[in-house]
Order: sequence, then C-alpha cells, then structure tokens
Amino acid sequence: MISNIKRPTLVIRESVCRANIDRMLSKAKASDVIFRPHFKTHQSLDTGQWFREAGVDRITVSSAAMAQRFASAGWSDISIAFPANLREIAEYDRLAKEIRLNLLADSVETIKELTTNMSHQAGIFIEIDCGYGRSGARYDDHERINAVIDQVRRSGKLVFKGFLTHSGDTYHAAGPEGVRNIHDESLARLNRLKNEHSSSFPGLIISVGDTPSCSIVEDLGDADEIRPGNFVYYDLMQYRLGACELNDIAVSVACPVAGIYPLRDELVVYGGAVHLSKEYLDGEEKHFGLVVRYTDGGWSDPLPNTRLLSLSQEHGIIRTDSDTLSSIHTGDILGILPVHSCLTANLLGKDTLMI
Amino acid sequence: MISNIKRPTLVIRESVCRANIDRMLSKAKASDVIFRPHFKTHQSLDTGQWFREAGVDRITVSSAAMAQRFASAGWSDISIAFPANLREIAEYDRLAKEIRLNLLADSVETIKELTTNMSHQAGIFIEIDCGYGRSGARYDDHERINAVIDQVRRSGKLVFKGFLTHSGDTYHAAGPEGVRNIHDESLARLNRLKNEHSSSFPGLIISVGDTPSCSIVEDLGDADEIRPGNFVYYDLMQYRLGACELNDIAVSVACPVAGIYPLRDELVVYGGAVHLSKEYLDGEEKHFGLVVRYTDGGWSDPLPNTRLLSLSQEHGIIRTDSDTLSSIHTGDILGILPVHSCLTANLLGKDTLMI
Repeated sequence: MISNIKRPTLVIRESVCRANIDRMLSKAKASDVIFRPHFKTHQSLDTGQWFREAGVDRITVSSAAMAQRFASAGWSDISIAFPANLREIAEYDRLAKEIRLNLLADSVETIKELTTNMSHQAGIFIEIDCGYGRSGARYDDHERINAVIDQVRRSGKLVFKGFLTHSGDTYHAAGPEGVRNIHDESLARLNRLKNEHSSSFPGLIISVGDTPSCSIVEDLGDADEIRPGNFVYYDLMQYRLGACELNDIAVSVACPVAGIYPLRDELVVYGGAVHLSKEYLDGEEKHFGLVVRYTDGGWSDPLPNTRLLSLSQEHGIIRTDSDTLSSIHTGDILGILPVHSCLTANLLGKDTLMI
Repeated sequence: MISNIKRPTLVIRESVCRANIDRMLSKAKASDVIFRPHFKTHQSLDTGQWFREAGVDRITVSSAAMAQRFASAGWSDISIAFPANLREIAEYDRLAKEIRLNLLADSVETIKELTTNMSHQAGIFIEIDCGYGRSGARYDDHERINAVIDQVRRSGKLVFKGFLTHSGDTYHAAGPEGVRNIHDESLARLNRLKNEHSSSFPGLIISVGDTPSCSIVEDLGDADEIRPGNFVYYDLMQYRLGACELNDIAVSVACPVAGIYPLRDELVVYGGAVHLSKEYLDGEEKHFGLVVRYTDGGWSDPLPNTRLLSLSQEHGIIRTDSDTLSSIHTGDILGILPVHSCLTANLLGKDTLMI
C-alpha cells in the first residue's frame, strides 16, 4: 500500500511490466530472433518470474554474482554480457559446470586465460565495437578479431557462438530515426563478420542488445538474438528517445514530502542520489526526474510545471508552481518517474513495492 | 590484499582516515566547538569505531535507519540531520527512548505531529536555509521561524536546542575564498537568530556542517557545533575546492581491467555507475574519477593524461596515452579516486577492503 510507505521505495506496476515483456517477446517471435532479455535492469527474482511465465528461458546478466543468483533460482542458460573478468574465472567455471554459460571476449589474452583455467565448456561471443566505443574489438579490426577467433578454435573447450554488440550510442541519438540508423549500421557490420566466418563456423549468431533499438525498430530479423534489458521498466530517458510511451514506464519512486518552501515554489522530498542515482536529462529544463501522484493502482501523468531540480545524498528538491505547491503537504507521498531505471532499481532493490 | 580483489572494491586507508579524524577533532577542540561528525559518508561501524577511539561520542546521521544502526552499536547521542519525516515518528520515538536524540524541523506542522505522536523527549534543531536553498526555513523568514519556536515551546516534550544549517553551496564555490565567504555569511545569519532568541532560550547552539568550510576555515569558533562528514574520506571534489590535499583522500575503488583498446588509447575497467555513482567533475576535461596504481600500503598519485571518461552500469572507460596503455594489461587492478566519496561508499558498503 502506497499509504504505508515510510521511506523512498521503488513502486513496480506488475501489469505494465508484464505488458512490456509480452510486447517485446511478441516482436522477437515475429522477427524470428532469440529473446535473451538482460536482467541487470531489474536484478529481481520476482520480475524474473514474470519473464519465465511468459515463456522466456534464456537470459543475459552483467556479472558472475548476478549469474550465480539467477542460476540458483533455476535459470539454466545465461550469457554474461560483460568482458570476461580474468579474476573470476573460477566463478565462471563453477557456473559452466551447472548451467549453459556464455562469456564475452575481445582479446587473445582472455581466451588463453579462460582456456588454461576452465575445466568446463562455455560458449564464447566475440564482442564487437560497432562504433559505440566502449568494449569490444572494433568491427574493422580484422587482425584482432581473426586472432581471437583463431585462439577460440585452438582452445578445445570454448565454443565460438557468434558476434555480440551493445550499441549504447542509441541512447545519445536525436530520436527514433537516429536510433534506426545506428541499429542498421551495427547490424550491417556484424553481418559482414558473420558472413566472413560462417563457412568455418556454421550456426554463428549475431546478438544485439539495446532497448532503444529493440523498441523502435519494427523488424529485428537482421539479428539472430536480442538482449534488451531496460524495456521491462522503461524510464524518462527511453521516453525522450521515443522508445516508449509515458504509460509504459513501469516504475516510480515513492518519496515522502519532507519540507514545503512557498517563498521559492519548491519542496523537498526524502529521496536523493542514493535512491534515484544522479542520472539527469539535459536540455532547457535539466531535471533528475518528473513528479506524479499515486492513484488507485497506478499513478498520474507527470505534474505540469514540476520537475526534480536537484539531488543531494538524501534530499530531492522539486520545483513547481504555487498552485501545485499549495496542494502538497509535509508527509504526503509523491512519485518520481526515474531518468534511468536501471540505476534506480539497483539502488532500491531491497525497498520495493509491487502494485 | 589488493592482489586478491575480484570485483570493484572500496579500498580504505585506515591511517589516512584516522589522520583526517584527528585533524578535524583537533581543530574543533582548538575552536572550542562540539564535534558531531556526520556518519552518512562512511555508514560503517568499523570507521565509526575509529571516531570512538579518538574520543568522539556524539554523531550525526541522515535517516532513522542509520540512527538505529549506530544506536545498536552503542552510539547514544545522535542527531538526524534531515527534516523530520512524519512517516517515521514511531521510529524516532523508539530511538528517543533509548538514546539522546535530536531531530530537525522547519515547520509548525512537523512540530505538531511530533508533539502528538511522540511519548519520549527529543531535542529539536530548527533548520535554517542560509542561502543554499535546500531545506530549512529561510534565515530572514522571521514569521515562519518564530512560529516554529513558539510551537516547540508549547509542545512540552520537545526541547529547543538551537539553529542548524548545511551550507551545501560551498560545494559550488570557486575556491577557498568563496567557501570562507559562504561560511562567514551563514554564521552571521545564524548568530543573529541566536542572539534574538537566547534570552528566552539560554544555551541555544548553532550547528554548521559542510566539509569544505570545516576544512578550509581556520577558526570555527563562531559556531557552537560542527557536523562535517565527507572529510573522513575526502574525494576529488574536495581536492578541487582546496579542502584537502590529494594524499588526504582515504578511499579509492579497486577495479579489474576488462579490456584494452590501443586504437583509441582507452581501456575498460570493471567499475561503473553502480560502483562509483555518476557524479562527475566538470571543466575542460570532464571526468568521473582519476586513476592510480596500488603500491605497498597505498596508491600512487593520479596517472598523468589519464581519466575516467565515462561510465555505464558496470563499465568504466578510461582514456590515457599510448605509453601508459601499453603498461596495463587485462586482469590488472587499477584504482579510481572517486569524485564524491559519500555516494561511492554508499554503493560499495559491502565490498570494502581496509589497508
């Protein structure tokens, strides 16, 4: 019950989450691609269960610890979509004994270390940097890519599964058309690699991941697997990109009102950087979140003229207009739609309310 | 041991922490002010123990939960320096039964609710906004301040302790002179209020809090109590303000190197926004942290030409020069000096190494 909330709490609308899952699953089926959702956004066994009930049996995570947690909850086919950490090979090996495990690598050194120190079989995706510039061998660095493939071939115990990318640059695209362009270019680059190597490695797959592409692009059939994560909750960043509607956002943060300041048309909520993260949306009206009121079973549209102006550790300052301010009282609960739900859910994992 | 680290880990230099504590305690003694350090930065019972060993017996926290945690560890005089949360009055009342508890209020409504719903005595600081514009009654809003004081007087069970402010605007000062000016102005405003009311309430105190002021101002004697928190660890934000030296920074985040990218003089560490927070330092070379190497018992100065360029959930991208890059290998451990140690320590509380 919202009315029982005492501290900043992640409120999750189950029906919206399930609809987000169903919509993405349907698109994956229609596009004939494997659906391997990323669980780093929610990190929740309960939310994971909704995926399972929808028929999902393959997942993506971002750390060995997260893989262990979901493996213990019965998930048996997991990709860890982070460059294989040479300091956790023992953890990977234990996982590979229990479940079907895929790891990421982009260097000969990593393949050598995995080969030497693992005793169980694991799949390997070669991570490709299609232009985002985070991790992965650059799509046109054939020397590096070929050397990694060669090392996998010689390993004996690692199975080359395909090429994987995360086009995180879609988050900085100007809008849906920009997202589509990045997606198309990434896929063209990955498909060139796949075609080049599929005679030696039949069955290679191409795995792509970001929520903006997977939400905006109608037909994902040029990929073989999709790994979106954020879409389960969505957030204001995705809304601004055109990746979701406002009412697809499945989470808000319930915050008690702690102070009312009519002299500056502002109020302070108990809800700060340790609850929401310091992610913000830039622009004319930079903000750290928008403000909603809770209703029966959900919440309102964002209040007009109202935004989360700044955050310190536990304080959130909301600027509004005098009419709105006069309707709010100390001790009320307001909701904040988060800018980046992955970081917010990570911070509030233990303080969660399902509605 | 740094060499055993597998995942992003907060490394705390005990000797530096203890020196930071001793220095601030000495300054408080020399200035003849009460030292009530804020424990929200470290939130650690171990670090708290170093304060106790230095002779500290009064502390500040920012939530009822934090107060409960430190009360259970034997701390018996605690101020909760956040506007009293009307949804946690039962928690406050339980605390007030066990320990000497001070709460913050800036409205008549809050005092009324506390009076009605608490059965044990608590101290009340009236929070004053001296210009920062976060929480508190504005220093010149005499009508509001007088009404709150009057309500406290009538409560019977709440004890008016004094005026409290947090001059967080010092974090945005241009340098030490700017910090001093904000500090002096805040204290002048608080002392006017104290003088106005001390005939009716003898023994009223003035409590100020921010680390920049408490570090930079030589004589804190115009206050009666100081509540700095960040100084126990310091960070790059404090260093840039001139509040500490580089080697006063007592924490770094040890991160395994996950990928090396010579084509762009960059590398990726396992260490992202869920470990460091998204706090950054602006300027010509915007960054999310600087990079150090671990040495016997500590770490180096920041590596030249090297900075943490961007963060996603678990990835940190470090830009450097080709010479430095060629000396780093996948699986190495690098240290990141955090921009804002409060948020970083909050994220890594469970993954900590004392050296």
